Amino acid sequence: MNLKIAVLPGDGIGPEVILQAKKALHAIGEVYNHEFVFEEALMGAIAIDKTGNPLPEQTLNLCLNTDAVLFGAIGDPKYDNNPNAKVRPEQGLLKLRKELGLFANIRPIKPYKSLIDASPLKREIIDGADFTIFRELTGGAYFGAKTLNEEGTHASDLCEYSEEEITRIAHLAFKAAQNRRKKLTMVDKANVLETSRLWRKVVQKIGESYPDVALDFLFVDNAAMQIILNPKQFDVILTENLFGDILSDEASVITGSIGLLASASLGEKNALFEPIHGSYPQAKGKNIANPIASILSAAMLLEHFGLFKEANVVYQAVEKAIEFKVVTTDLKADSKFGTNEVGEFVSNFI
Amino acid sequence: MNLKIAVLPGDGIGPEVILQAKKALHAIGEVYNHEFVFEEALMGAIAIDKTGNPLPEQTLNLCLNTDAVLFGAIGDPKYDNNPNAKVRPEQGLLKLRKELGLFANIRPIKPYKSLIDASPLKREIIDGADFTIFRELTGGAYFGAKTLNEEGTHASDLCEYSEEEITRIAHLAFKAAQNRRKKLTMVDKANVLETSRLWRKVVQKIGESYPDVALDFLFVDNAAMQIILNPKQFDVILTENLFGDILSDEASVITGSIGLLASASLGEKNALFEPIHGSYPQAKGKNIANPIASILSAAMLLEHFGLFKEANVVYQAVEKAIEFKVVTTDLKADSKFGTNEVGEFVSNFI
Ligand SMILES: CC(C)[C@H](C(=O)O)[C@@H](O)C(=O)O
Ligand SMILES: CC(C)[C@H](C(=O)O)[C@@H](O)C(=O)O
Repeated sequence: MNLKIAVLPGDGIGPEVILQAKKALHAIGEVYNHEFVFEEALMGAIAIDKTGNPLPEQTLNLCLNTDAVLFGAIGDPKYDNNPNAKVRPEQGLLKLRKELGLFANIRPIKPYKSLIDASPLKREIIDGADFTIFRELTGGAYFGAKTLNEEGTHASDLCEYSEEEITRIAHLAFKAAQNRRKKLTMVDKANVLETSRLWRKVVQKIGESYPDVALDFLFVDNAAMQIILNPKQFDVILTENLFGDILSDEASVITGSIGLLASASLGEKNALFEPIHGSYPQAKGKNIANPIASILSAAMLLEHFGLFKEANVVYQAVEKAIEFKVVTTDLKADSKFGTNEVGEFVSNFI
Repeated sequence: MNLKIAVLPGDGIGPEVILQAKKALHAIGEVYNHEFVFEEALMGAIAIDKTGNPLPEQTLNLCLNTDAVLFGAIGDPKYDNNPNAKVRPEQGLLKLRKELGLFANIRPIKPYKSLIDASPLKREIIDGADFTIFRELTGGAYFGAKTLNEEGTHASDLCEYSEEEITRIAHLAFKAAQNRRKKLTMVDKANVLETSRLWRKVVQKIGESYPDVALDFLFVDNAAMQIILNPKQFDVILTENLFGDILSDEASVITGSIGLLASASLGEKNALFEPIHGSYPQAKGKNIANPIASILSAAMLLEHFGLFKEANVVYQAVEKAIEFKVVTTDLKADSKFGTNEVGEFVSNFI
């Protein structure tokens, strides 16, 4: 297979971890005779620094015209603590998601057997947990109109959803549930929010055409609790953009480290793959960032193109690294291995 | 002291648990010579059933003219799964919060030593955790304009905040931090939301007049993770309405059961005390609901009126119940004690 892949390393630890993902893909290409052509481009704080724009035209065009995007991380503290900054790195990622129409963000959560003890949760709580979060990615408060009055004393964010936006991701989530344990949990705040009531109504209706999938509903406050109390109850979780952002970071504790979690963002035509951790600026350049989330994002990319055998080889290589404790310090405090060494191990194992 | 207390048992398990809180207050009154006069009123689904209105005029008037409100729980599944219901129980609680101006909801999180093993989190993670969440309670998406178009295919919720709304709760939170370990963590999503950027700006500014308090900022997704990974890092958490709703339910796992968590909602003139658990309709009338959160809400009420000694006696009685394992099944699966027995034990111990 020939694939043209846009690579956006982004900010903070992004470049370091993406390098390891590329190495893994390169190794797969060699062994299985695929041609993966990588083309790098700027996005985020680094793009602002170099071009003034968090998503330069050139980057967007590249992404629109490749088979897939591999993305690292975005964000820089110099913008976070300056509420007056007009241009911010995250705008680049949000614009990219919107322009590529990446409406479904898929985040699988499943602890590795050999890492069960790395979690702050007790073994019996997490052993056997295995669920996937379907997060809507191009709607909600992320994209609604924002206002700030002239005096800077009053602000607003509009959360909006349409039936159509809910429908397209709901079908994906129901189909995923059909291929799994046939349970879908919709998370909302329908006792307070109008958008949540629309979600609930639309999803209830769509559920009728998936009679083999058991559908239930949880309020987001309760869901945030249930994910920790009893994560095994979940199979597929479906939710809106901001709730999905919060719940998926929270759910990362089940696996022991957010440095293990990959995600796929899918649209009608485009697909982007990224680790769910952020730019982790404190770790930048120190060779301590966990590259596994990025490497697993590359595996999700392979799966997306039907390269299941190849994806499995990557999953197995990652499992071996974990089993042999070739991991970064987020997983083993006294580990001697860094970002590079873990990445090397994985690509050598392929 | 003479106190007139409006009692709103509400829905589900509300009436059962509130009865136990009243018993505890009654016992305190007897022993310490206070006169607590209780007046009951309707709110929630039960008020809709009886009057058509989730917050009858009479209830509101009573609450406006008492020293404090003791509230149970609200909500009924028959409304939750009917997205078309025009009148819903929660409207009663939201209206009450607004009308009484209860802008600050205070939720203390601290595990009981003897219950450390009841948590899904490991002992070493939670032992020593002790923080308080200050949740803004009368603004944000809860109260902003809501729309649903005529076809029922498009909905919106507006999240709004003003400098003034942020300022008044921020001062309370900073003052609380001064009396604790002098650390304040503001939780927002300032990399995406305009309202969060306003929060950050205002809180940063106010922080300058509290130089003895260390102020830091966390994005809500990261906060949802950090609360589980390392709850001991927190002292006072300050956040907006919806984030506070999610994070405080989540944080309840640290204590082993949401059935232990009380809250105080304060305004300029009024105060309301409520358990943070909901109406838990599946448990209604079964004598299995944990009354401790309600009893602790009553203790917070005593503290609010400066009755610290009396509040302490209630705290101690609850600790004894827990120590002697006179607890409901959420805390000890094979417990033989129910709501009533736990309440009796506590009030007898006073
Ligand atoms: C960086 C930020 C804008 C982003 C989000 O909130 O979507 C991130 O937290 C994520 O989850 O991908
Ligand atoms: C019942 C509901 C409206 C309420 C809220 O979301 O505020 C509850 O969850 C709470 O936390 O008090």
